[in-house]
Amino acid sequence: MNKYPNSLENLIEAFQSLPSVGRKTAERYALYIFSNMEEEKLIDFSNSLISIKKDIKKCPCCGNITENDLCNICSDPQRNKKQVLVVESIKDLYTIESLKEYKGIYHVLGGVISFSKGITIHDLNIDSLEEKVKNKEVNELILATNATLEGETTARYLKELLKDYDVKITRIAHGLPVGGDISYLDEMTILKAMEGRREY
Amino acid sequence: MNKYPNSLENLIEAFQSLPSVGRKTAERYALYIFSNMEEEKLIDFSNSLISIKKDIKKCPCCGNITENDLCNICSDPQRNKKQVLVVESIKDLYTIESLKEYKGIYHVLGGVISFSKGITIHDLNIDSLEEKVKNKEVNELILATNATLEGETTARYLKELLKDYDVKITRIAHGLPVGGDISYLDEMTILKAMEGRREY
Repeated sequence: MNKYPNSLENLIEAFQSLPSVGRKTAERYALYIFSNMEEEKLIDFSNSLISIKKDIKKCPCCGNITENDLCNICSDPQRNKKQVLVVESIKDLYTIESLKEYKGIYHVLGGVISFSKGITIHDLNIDSLEEKVKNKEVNELILATNATLEGETTARYLKELLKDYDVKITRIAHGLPVGGDISYLDEMTILKAMEGRREY
Repeated sequence: MNKYPNSLENLIEAFQSLPSVGRKTAERYALYIFSNMEEEKLIDFSNSLISIKKDIKKCPCCGNITENDLCNICSDPQRNKKQVLVVESIKDLYTIESLKEYKGIYHVLGGVISFSKGITIHDLNIDSLEEKVKNKEVNELILATNATLEGETTARYLKELLKDYDVKITRIAHGLPVGGDISYLDEMTILKAMEGRREY
């Protein structure tokens, strides 16, 4: 005997499919739920798993998640629809949104071009972005993919794809993170920070 | 807008109730499930959450979890019922069991005496252990609570409680972990390792 009872084993396996959850962590979660979680909370947990696929869909305009036809951002009349910030993921969108500074709308690519993972432009939400630009719905496109190889490749690709249209394309700045110590930074970041220097 | 759609928010909250899962990790899990998990797997996940409370109960003999009347270990005729290894948690039981060395049975306390957490002897599965010892069902009791303050206190308490009965009480050894480097060890472990030294 080395395995837990079947139903617990199933739950452990389910937890293991989450990102960076290994066997030990999954066991810990499952045993915690068994020992500490009240039945009522457990039923809520179980139901919320089912309902996210049922109740949530992608906003056809930007790719954000929503329970309505359009997401809260695209349907907000206060937002500047002419300024579009392109992010890799919904998580990135919510991170930027939580700063409560940006007043335009978003476009979620749903990933980045990655040769190692076999993700090509056809797997990304690019067509609808090109369509928007083509229809002159956008004045400024802010490329906010991550500062990784894949993020740069994707930003580069979008720039090439859209350069002939009448749209201003910008890329968020790379450089020293606030509070960052140069001696701990990698070469690339320092180079980018030097390159992006401004009059002071 | 700073919050995700309601059903996703509910799932994030559910994940946050797991041990050492903060807001960021919970968001990551929930978004991963939304974006990557197939509907079928999601339903399995949801069902397994419900079924652990329904299908699994505690073994009345040792406190281990089981889907049957007695757990696999207590109902195994090959196991030595006279030797009882006392552990804090089901997880510890499974850790020791995975070594496939121990041939006795277990007793799960379901915690340890902790003043800071307000856990007293009345919250632990101790009565049935005393009962077993009183009825002379046990020859050797191996105290395998952790080498923490709480684990030691609990071991000490059990020793006091049961010392007048006709039972051999042992405590697992403390010392240098295999592969351990003395210079990296804390004082207490080194002292315990010295104290527990044997003829070589």
